[in-house]
Order: sequence, then C-alpha cells, then structure tokens
Amino acid sequence: MERVKDYLQENEDRLLDKLKQFLAIESISTDPEKKPAMEEAVTFLTDYLEDIGFEKVERRETGGHPLVYAEYNGAADAPTALFYGHYDVQPADPYELWDSAPFSPEIRSGRLFARGASDDKGQVFMHLAVFEAMMKTEGSLPVNVKVLIEGEEEIGSEHLYTYLDDNKEELKSDFALISDSGMVDKGVPTILYGLKGFTGLEVTLTGPNRDLHSGLYGGAVKNPAMAMAQLLATMKNTDEQVTVDGFYDSAENLPEAERKLMNEAPGEHYPETTGVPETAPEKGYTAKEHTMARPTLEVNGLFGGYQGAGTKTIIPSEATAKLTCRLVPGQDPKQIQDALVRHIEAHVPKGVRADIKREALSAKAYKVDPDHPLLQKAAESYSAAFGRETVFVRLGGSIPVVESIDSGFGIPVVLLGFGTPEDNLHSPNESFPVEHFSKGMEVLADFYTKAVE
Amino acid sequence: MERVKDYLQENEDRLLDKLKQFLAIESISTDPEKKPAMEEAVTFLTDYLEDIGFEKVERRETGGHPLVYAEYNGAADAPTALFYGHYDVQPADPYELWDSAPFSPEIRSGRLFARGASDDKGQVFMHLAVFEAMMKTEGSLPVNVKVLIEGEEEIGSEHLYTYLDDNKEELKSDFALISDSGMVDKGVPTILYGLKGFTGLEVTLTGPNRDLHSGLYGGAVKNPAMAMAQLLATMKNTDEQVTVDGFYDSAENLPEAERKLMNEAPGEHYPETTGVPETAPEKGYTAKEHTMARPTLEVNGLFGGYQGAGTKTIIPSEATAKLTCRLVPGQDPKQIQDALVRHIEAHVPKGVRADIKREALSAKAYKVDPDHPLLQKAAESYSAAFGRETVFVRLGGSIPVVESIDSGFGIPVVLLGFGTPEDNLHSPNESFPVEHFSKGMEVLADFYTKAVE
Repeated sequence: MERVKDYLQENEDRLLDKLKQFLAIESISTDPEKKPAMEEAVTFLTDYLEDIGFEKVERRETGGHPLVYAEYNGAADAPTALFYGHYDVQPADPYELWDSAPFSPEIRSGRLFARGASDDKGQVFMHLAVFEAMMKTEGSLPVNVKVLIEGEEEIGSEHLYTYLDDNKEELKSDFALISDSGMVDKGVPTILYGLKGFTGLEVTLTGPNRDLHSGLYGGAVKNPAMAMAQLLATMKNTDEQVTVDGFYDSAENLPEAERKLMNEAPGEHYPETTGVPETAPEKGYTAKEHTMARPTLEVNGLFGGYQGAGTKTIIPSEATAKLTCRLVPGQDPKQIQDALVRHIEAHVPKGVRADIKREALSAKAYKVDPDHPLLQKAAESYSAAFGRETVFVRLGGSIPVVESIDSGFGIPVVLLGFGTPEDNLHSPNESFPVEHFSKGMEVLADFYTKAVE
Repeated sequence: MERVKDYLQENEDRLLDKLKQFLAIESISTDPEKKPAMEEAVTFLTDYLEDIGFEKVERRETGGHPLVYAEYNGAADAPTALFYGHYDVQPADPYELWDSAPFSPEIRSGRLFARGASDDKGQVFMHLAVFEAMMKTEGSLPVNVKVLIEGEEEIGSEHLYTYLDDNKEELKSDFALISDSGMVDKGVPTILYGLKGFTGLEVTLTGPNRDLHSGLYGGAVKNPAMAMAQLLATMKNTDEQVTVDGFYDSAENLPEAERKLMNEAPGEHYPETTGVPETAPEKGYTAKEHTMARPTLEVNGLFGGYQGAGTKTIIPSEATAKLTCRLVPGQDPKQIQDALVRHIEAHVPKGVRADIKREALSAKAYKVDPDHPLLQKAAESYSAAFGRETVFVRLGGSIPVVESIDSGFGIPVVLLGFGTPEDNLHSPNESFPVEHFSKGMEVLADFYTKAVE
C-alpha cells in the first residue's frame, strides 16, 4: 500500500495533466454534434486501460453511445469488483457564466475547474489512476475487476439497462463500486446508503396555430402560457406538497431514527450556499429530510412566447414544461409517471391541447443496510485517508444504475463519492478539489485492498 | 363630387404607379441603414403636397425621423381636419417568405403586394390622391386640412407625443382623421369607434444564485419556475377573469346595445381561423365582446430553466414572465400597472425574490360615441361607396396616437380604415386590395365633402 501511495504522490502532476486531457474532451452526450468528442473519450479510456494492462479492453456498441468495457482477472481466488462510471457530461451552457472555459481545465485556489471534473470523468479517472499505480508498483491488482464506463448517464442511460440484462454472465461480480457522488462537506468522509428514484415527462400546451396579436385575439383564445401556469399550480401547493393524486401513496415513511441521522449529519447551510432567501421544504419536514428522503416534483424548464428584450404583444402559440420527480423507496417510477399523466389530462385548461412526452428514463430508489461489512470497510478506508469519522447519508439524487445493479445482480453497491457541495454539478463553473483527488485515490487503493480480506 | 370621382377613375393607373413609387422606398424606421430611404420618403411626400397646392409644406425635425407637415387653409368658415398617417414601415424580413420582393410593388389577383401597401403608406397615399383630385377638378378642398405624417409609428412614435404637446396651437383642428386600420372583412364598411389602452410589465423570480441539481437541492429550495406558475395562477382564474385586486374597478360596463352590435358584426370565426379547440372568453362575455371591449391580461412570454432537447435535471435559478394588459375606457394604465405590481409583491411565493420591470409605454383606451354626427357621416360615405351597410366596431388593439389626440386636443378622431384581415400587416406578403384603393378614395372624397355640411 505504501508503494502505491508513494507512486500516486510522485506522479500526481502527470496524472492531473492526463486527467485534464480527458476533461478537455467535450463529451456532451445529449448534443448530436458532439459525437466525435464522444468517440474521442472512448479512445482515451480504451487506450488508458490497455496501457494499465487490462484485458479484453473493448468498445461495446449499444445502439447509442458506446460503452467501454475491460477486465482484470489476475487475482485468483479474490472477489470480483464491478466498477461502473460514465464518461459523458452535462451540457455546459450558459458558457458566458463560466470563469474559465468548461473544456479548458484549469486549477484555481486548489480546485480543478472543468465540466465533468466531479461528475463523473474526474472520479472515473481516479479509479484508473489507482489501477495504474497498483500495476506499476505491485504488478497486480488485489481484486479482479470488471470495468464498465458508459456514455449515456446524463441522457438517462438509455441503452445501459438492456446491456446489463443481456450480459449478466459476463458482468457477474461480487460487489459493485461507483464513485459518482459526493461528500456531505469538504473533508467529511461520506458513505451513501440510499438514493432517490426518478421519473419525468414533458408537457406542451398548444392553443392557436401561430403566435397571435394580443389585441386582436386577447379574450378570444386561451393563452397557453397562462394555461401552463394554471396547470402547474394544480400539481404542487405552496406547502411544497405534491397535489397529484396517488403521489405519496406507496412512499416509504421516513423512520424517526433516520430523520435524526439526517438532521445531525454535517452538510450544506442552504440559504447561504444557494443564495435563496429561505428554504422551502415540504410541510412537516426539514430541508435535509426532504432532499434526502422525501419525494420531489420539479419544473426543470418552462418556456413559451417571446423571450427577447422589450415587449412583443403576442399570445404564444404554445408553452412547454419539463418536469421530473425524485422518488423514495416504495414508489414505482412507472406508476408515478402514470399518475402525473392522469393528473395533467384531467387538469388541462379548456382552450388548449396537451401533448405529453413521457421521459423514457426511470429508476427506483435504492437503499442498503448501512451496517453491511463492505460499507463498514469502505468507511474505514475513508476515515483513515481523511482523518475523520465517516458519516452515512442518503442522497436526493438518482443513480439509476445502482438500483439496476441491485435488482439485476443481487450484489451490494458501494458508493464512494469524493465530490463536495461546492462542485457545481450540472452548473457553470463545475469543479473538484485537488486534495480530494489525492486523498480519494488513497481511499480507493486502501478499499480495493481491504475488500479481499 | 362626380367630377372628383371621374378624375379618380380616369387617373387610377397613373395614381397606382405613383403609389408604387412611394412603396418602393424602403422606409424602415427601425433600421439605421435605411436613413436615406426615410429621407426619400419625406421628399416624396413634401413634393407631392406642394404639387397638390398645399401651403407651409415642411419637413419638421423631431430628434428622430422627421415629420411631414402641411396645411390647406382655403376653405373659409369650413371646419379644419387634422389628417394623421405614417410613412415608415415594419422591417420586411424574412425576405425569402415574400412571393415578390417587398419593395418591388406588384399587383396580383387584384391585390397590390408591397411592404406598407396597407400599413400605412397605401392608406396615406389615398388621402393625398383625393386632395389632388379635388384641387384639379374643383380648384379647392371643402375643408381646411392640417397634414401630419410621422416616420416613427413602427418604433413607438417616440418623438410624436412631445411634438403634439409642443405644437398644440398650430395643430388646432375640429376633428382628426386617420386611415391606419382595417375593415372587419373585405368589402364590409367598418367604422372603428373604440380602441383598447395598454400597459405591461416584466417580472423575474429569482431563487438560487445558479441552476441547481434537482436531486441534491430538490426539497431544500423553492423552484422559481413553479413559483412563477403559482404566481401567474393567482392573477387569472380559469373563467378568464383577472383576479388582480382593483383590475375591473373603473372599467366601463359594456352597454347591452354595444354587446348586440359586436355580436352581430361580421368577423372572424375564431376556432377555425386560429386553430384553437375552443374559444376562451371571460365568463359572461362572448369572444367578440371580450376582444373588443373587455380588458385582458396576457402572458406574452414565459421562460426559465432548460429549453433544449431531452432532460436536464435542474432547479432553474430564475423564471421570467412578460405580461401586458389591454385596457378599456375608464381604466388608467398607470393605476392598472400599480395594481399588477402590488398584486405580484403580495403574492410572491416564499423562497424567491421578485424583480419587476415596468413597461414604459402605455396608453388609455379610446372610445367615441358611435352616434357622433361625424361618424354617422363617415358611415354614409362608406355605405354609399361599398354598397353595404356600415358596421361599428371596437378594436382590441391600441393606436396610442388616437388616445393622445383625443386627450390632448379634445377633438373626435374618425378612424376610416380600408385594410382587410388578409393584408398580412407586419408579416411577409403584405398587400392591399386594389378595389379598396378606388372605393376607399370615393369614401374619403365623399366624407371630406360631407364633413362641412
């Protein structure tokens, strides 16, 4: 272990440079024009895995963006870890809000700024660097490893689930390991033992077949933007309770013991870190409880009519809202999506037509016993590297692959995240603390070794 | 009168050619590069007015595009008419959607196609041609005339109102005459006896200081797009009644007699012409009544968060709505704007901040008694020329200069429009029926003569 740690320290600058090359690739999976960049990211990963000494390094076609697959089978009698990550990133717009260009990685004040620095290219790279360090120093890895890095996480992992289903035998492992999350606070070791599920849809309300003059037609036709406001207002009340019939019916009741854990866990001080005038959690819950363990309904995008400077006196032809929900254990994504569709269909204001696009991606929530031995080992590695007790939390975010591995393979999923609340995931100025890069690699090296014991 | 009519008929081809020269001038007021064309249009008008025999023909500086001013004072003891029009036009883009070039006037299927053919150069020209015909045949005009043709109507008449204020004495007249509107249908004589007023504002709700991850922050912070939906939904109910305190307080009650007039007037069949599934007027009113004579509140634009393809699971930092109202007699634009601001401030959902930008432009509604002798005379002239009974309507649109002349000069404004619903004002392929050109000039000649009686 010491030699691995030394190697990582001695090679930190070179490894950071290599990571910067990876981050400079504009692998935005949602943008069809970035297809060449997606290919470039695949090549970066397959080249690196081959250099490290992995076997069966392959680009796997999926029907969408390819997966990167590789195996290490040199640890006879040792367990097999399935390492999952993703090489695609969120779009970077609005570009003008970035202090340095999103695909020109730059270190400032101890942070590496780039789209994907934290989510998830930076954290994927840490695993590969640890594998490199072990191979270069020990000549082997302590566990067998199956590497699966997808390119569609940010667009819903459309082809991943079929792939997992179709390749159960090849992917067979003893546990899974994912670093695509964060710590409750910078420097505070954190094990995630629960994630939210996910579903969503897009609704467009159409009134007139073109934008109309607001003077000549105002009063004759329903305004689709107002209709959208009225429709959305029927879905959530000002107590932040979702008013869609059946929404909470099968949601797990939040145990008192967990409520206590959540409220005691260190974490963000929301008004300060977000700039909001006050928090707005569901009535009867704290902001921490709501984000970690209560379901949500969010408007991710809303648009219709004129958006330029000044005034344009039109009645827009249509208005659109993009909605997603985060779900808790017990809620079935399909049933919740159905409930949303039924609610919208029943509440479309007269004078407009609704067109609903169901989001294809969905995921159930995930929860594992925090006392599981692997989670406890991971906590030890964490506490050792960061010099602080590990906290156990649930996350409001969704990592659908976790639930999928859980239900499809029946193996525990260890979530070792190294991001921080200041990382600006999905936002301008995404970044990752350089210190977490080095300490995180220590954690990984230690955990991969401990996992065998 | 017969000699005037004969003259107009005999000279129709020559007059149309002269109109085409006027329409060929690219007098787009919003485009700084078209300044020479604006000058050319001014010269065309001053030359023509001098040829006809007007006195005091002058180009008047305003600080923006100049006004054209002229007087005819040869009708001793007769009343004085103030004729207002505008020589500027809307931009013509997208040019590729025009079947013939916007500044190469062309007659096809009985219509004259060109930018400005209807709005307003074509209709301005009709008055000048009638003046010419009267001077050439009778040697005089039956009324005194003050001509005021501005070059900034399409950009908000920025300098007109100050000009009207500063030149009250010179502009003193007995009535005003404007042809910058249309008929309810081709061939249906129409007198506009009312216009709506106008006010507006833009409101932005800001929550977090950046877009946030909907999983990590959903439940902690208020979603500004949902907040906007909830706020807008407090402003109008699904009966299409504006629920802003005080909004209807001083609005004129719509007299039963007028309701009858409006519903009997020919006009658009809304569901068919707009493609809406059904009309959505204020409860208790028909679509025609609401568009013509009830105040409206419209969302002209609504936007916040992600608008691209697919899903982006964010909580938007902010959401914006652009709102305008059309007002009826009795409503004061400033008071209504104040009421909107007060309502918004009182209904901002907790967790977001509101930033309100008041729209600077506003106008009161205008209404003149349809039984006013001048309107009745105009109707007679109209019916005689078109061989059909004249209908009296109010318009949901606003023509701020009308209200400005009404309140500033205290004289009736006679709105004699000759456009049709098919004219494509402000759109590609603007046109004007050639038949309305000749019949409209008959109406004007007859009306100018009758106005003295």
